[in-house]
Amino acid sequence: VFTSESLRIGIGDDAAVLDLGATSKLVVTSDLLAEGVHFEAGTALPRVGHKALAVNLSDLAAMSARPLAAVVSLLLSDDTALQSAKAVVEGMQPLATRHQVAIAGGDTNSWSGRLVISVTALGCLAGRSPWTRNGAVPGDVILVTGSLGGSLGGKHLDFEPRVTEALRLAGDYEIHAAIDISDGLSLDLARMATASGCAAVLDLEAIPISDAARSLAPAPESKSALDRALSDGEDFELLLAVPREVAKTLKRAPPFELPLTEIGEFASGAGIWRRKPDGGRAALEVEGYEHL
Amino acid sequence: VFTSESLRIGIGDDAAVLDLGATSKLVVTSDLLAEGVHFEAGTALPRVGHKALAVNLSDLAAMSARPLAAVVSLLLSDDTALQSAKAVVEGMQPLATRHQVAIAGGDTNSWSGRLVISVTALGCLAGRSPWTRNGAVPGDVILVTGSLGGSLGGKHLDFEPRVTEALRLAGDYEIHAAIDISDGLSLDLARMATASGCAAVLDLEAIPISDAARSLAPAPESKSALDRALSDGEDFELLLAVPREVAKTLKRAPPFELPLTEIGEFASGAGIWRRKPDGGRAALEVEGYEHL
Repeated sequence: VFTSESLRIGIGDDAAVLDLGATSKLVVTSDLLAEGVHFEAGTALPRVGHKALAVNLSDLAAMSARPLAAVVSLLLSDDTALQSAKAVVEGMQPLATRHQVAIAGGDTNSWSGRLVISVTALGCLAGRSPWTRNGAVPGDVILVTGSLGGSLGGKHLDFEPRVTEALRLAGDYEIHAAIDISDGLSLDLARMATASGCAAVLDLEAIPISDAARSLAPAPESKSALDRALSDGEDFELLLAVPREVAKTLKRAPPFELPLTEIGEFASGAGIWRRKPDGGRAALEVEGYEHL
Repeated sequence: VFTSESLRIGIGDDAAVLDLGATSKLVVTSDLLAEGVHFEAGTALPRVGHKALAVNLSDLAAMSARPLAAVVSLLLSDDTALQSAKAVVEGMQPLATRHQVAIAGGDTNSWSGRLVISVTALGCLAGRSPWTRNGAVPGDVILVTGSLGGSLGGKHLDFEPRVTEALRLAGDYEIHAAIDISDGLSLDLARMATASGCAAVLDLEAIPISDAARSLAPAPESKSALDRALSDGEDFELLLAVPREVAKTLKRAPPFELPLTEIGEFASGAGIWRRKPDGGRAALEVEGYEHL
């Protein structure tokens, strides 16, 4: 399962060797998925494999890194381990091929417990500085790719990480800060604002709400579609801070088909706010998935 | 928990960035440990942390790669997750410091299941070719570091990966092939012989048997101490194929304190053999831990 020329020695020796050529900056990220935590028992294994690779590629995209390789470690049920390993890796393959990611497995183990899959992804920066979450400045426009909310309806398993879009933006435009929305728009925006030492003001009516968020919303006692877009998490869209002039250029001549929507701006101060109809602002409750 | 200048951006952004400088070949390895499989429930968490890093550094040593960084993903029990994560990483720290490995964690998760820890380690080759397991040629001497067998007595948790010795050997001597003994001498030697397309002949009386193997051996119905040295596994010593002249030089002027013992030679043909007192050879039963 190698798809890249960069992988010199693969599975079968003690470790894999990657030829990085002129790349001097390596970007490394790791995400672990566990059955019953990140996906339900009974989820088709290829979908689990896709998600495990996709969440890692999404992290690389949020740093504007080009993915090179992924190392996969599996912990599988004793009775069906080999078969399961194959299904998980098969699920990764189309995504790996699309983005020329070499899959350098890794470690396959079996036990009596639930399925665990750990992926470490490596990427390069091709001379650029990585996007970080701390570079937003007051006056920057907040942009978001795609649409938000309702990811549990299926997108959290099947999403396409925004690798192509990130590389296009990083190559041609000045981007001040970036994060991928894994824990909810309001929470990840708060992280970006805090890291950057500024406030963020959202235009709630501008937020692109997904069809999934709208179709989940009508249930009694359910969150509103907007609340879902603000806090559901696992959207894996890119949240960006860009200079106003750059935002204008991007609006005038979109560099890709995926919607890139202006949803507010950074401002001096601190906290997450919503723009009121009268032009003032009110504090917004930050909600989302808090890690340990 | 950074110990290396090479780690530019660490925990807290979407991914870690490593400045590799002039290194163009990166060596990547990943090993996952699960409670009840690779260590017993109730094992002190710092020992588990040490082992998780050490098994990965042992893989890098077997490729003669200098370790640069390790990425750690954890899956911990819900009630004590943060405290456990700290204990695991603390257990890694002395080993990481000794070898200047930057610990770039990773992903910390909690669940109701057993402890799982996945480490991916990155190393560089500094212009050299990596050691592989397929380079042994007939006439090469088989060398092994340290002593073998009885690792379950404690060494499997507390062992020191042979990083220093590997780098010393790689820098100054011609080494044809290498592997770390993770699944038992006879099995890992068989892997090396098969990969190299030759046979291996062991002098059983030359094999360095550990004190642990000897003290476990007297129990009734137990394996003999020699059988333990041949098949116990998790020794994490280096097994090397070296030209006879190099072996002589190493014997005359040992480059480090750790014993480096000649235990046989590679020969044309196939299979694993033991040298008989009459100078002939007999087939040796290959035993050890077989992975999936």
